[in-house]
Amino acid sequence: MTYTLVLLRHGESEWNAKNLFTGWVDVPLSEKGVEEAKRGGELLKEADVSPDVVHTSLLRRAISTANLALDVADRHWIPVKRSWRLNERHYGALQGKDKKQTLAEFGEEQFMLWRRSYDVPPPEIELGSEFSQDADPRYADAPVIRTEALKLVLERALPYWESDIVPDLQAGKTVLVAAHGNSLRALVKHLDGVSDEAIAGLNIPTGIPLVYELDEETLSPVKPGGTYLDPEAAKDAIAAVANQGR
Amino acid sequence: MTYTLVLLRHGESEWNAKNLFTGWVDVPLSEKGVEEAKRGGELLKEADVSPDVVHTSLLRRAISTANLALDVADRHWIPVKRSWRLNERHYGALQGKDKKQTLAEFGEEQFMLWRRSYDVPPPEIELGSEFSQDADPRYADAPVIRTEALKLVLERALPYWESDIVPDLQAGKTVLVAAHGNSLRALVKHLDGVSDEAIAGLNIPTGIPLVYELDEETLSPVKPGGTYLDPEAAKDAIAAVANQGR
Repeated sequence: MTYTLVLLRHGESEWNAKNLFTGWVDVPLSEKGVEEAKRGGELLKEADVSPDVVHTSLLRRAISTANLALDVADRHWIPVKRSWRLNERHYGALQGKDKKQTLAEFGEEQFMLWRRSYDVPPPEIELGSEFSQDADPRYADAPVIRTEALKLVLERALPYWESDIVPDLQAGKTVLVAAHGNSLRALVKHLDGVSDEAIAGLNIPTGIPLVYELDEETLSPVKPGGTYLDPEAAKDAIAAVANQGR
Repeated sequence: MTYTLVLLRHGESEWNAKNLFTGWVDVPLSEKGVEEAKRGGELLKEADVSPDVVHTSLLRRAISTANLALDVADRHWIPVKRSWRLNERHYGALQGKDKKQTLAEFGEEQFMLWRRSYDVPPPEIELGSEFSQDADPRYADAPVIRTEALKLVLERALPYWESDIVPDLQAGKTVLVAAHGNSLRALVKHLDGVSDEAIAGLNIPTGIPLVYELDEETLSPVKPGGTYLDPEAAKDAIAAVANQGR
């Protein structure tokens, strides 16, 4: 027997469209992002993949993606769990900044280090500033986070994986995780045992469900990397994500 | 100290608009219903009523109403709980039937008995028929229900009130219940101690949050009947609901 895990990265947000660093800033999906979420639901339905429970971050773009996709897939009624531990990587002082301007200001090397290095976080955000979340009531139970590298995302996502997602899988439920580029990369790094170096080159496309069958004993993927429900679209989208900010 | 409970009846569904008996048939909100839900969220926000947890039925029109209202109110990230015990009254064999035709076919007296009596249910639905839910996976853990009068709705909603809603209130959380005309009438009957006779005349308008402050010892309303966040609109809407099907 295997367990079924489905990862779904939210579609385009209004700030993706504007090419701004978003992180924990709670921007809504763009019109395109709404369509991507619905398409994700159609793919689930066509493939007869029926989530029994959904886990989301606390950010609107992942929550809306889950709501829209599950509605289209006729699974709107399943239980919902949410955690800040599934949030996008906190982008520190870069939150709200234009990606192209940042690239021009700090140069290619520093820019790529902040975007893609495993353990070099951007500068810390100033508490109380416009794009900081330190006063947001939804994070009352979370530590104050001022910046994160992917390594820190993995370290705060894994406890939730162990405490909340694994028990749902072990109960035989098909689990949908609707989250973000970096929180999903962190989970994939863990599941597939991707190295600190190789994870830099791994992109997860938006709106295309990624299905993992996990061995019931080891929880390791039966097929490394899982299976996208629309492999052709995934291939094209991965190439597009890699060129973001250029 | 008091506890805060907010009841929100879903907005117009596609079948409300077509004047069909709906019950457990899982129809979506109409465009008007979507706008009502968003307005409900605006009212919450304007009144600074911030739900800490939401309870919904398993039906799309209540789930969408909660999603839309909470998104507008910036409370999309709160925990979600769902139960079939908050579903609309099961309308039995009348599900899918036109209200005016039913009135013409069975006469005013029988029609009003089915619609408004406390304990006379409509005829049972045939299992396996188009508008029966007996094969729906979302009700795998529920008994098979073939018809209900309001009395039965109260009897199946109360255990959930006690087991899931009251503990959230007692934890000091502001609780939003997004549900249906009859499941909310059942809760109001319980809270306000409305008689079996008087409940027939009690209508809850759609899309207007009804806020109850409950005594922390007795859980009885500090102000019987609670407070609508838009009292003028509620008055107009209550009159309109009373004339439905005429």
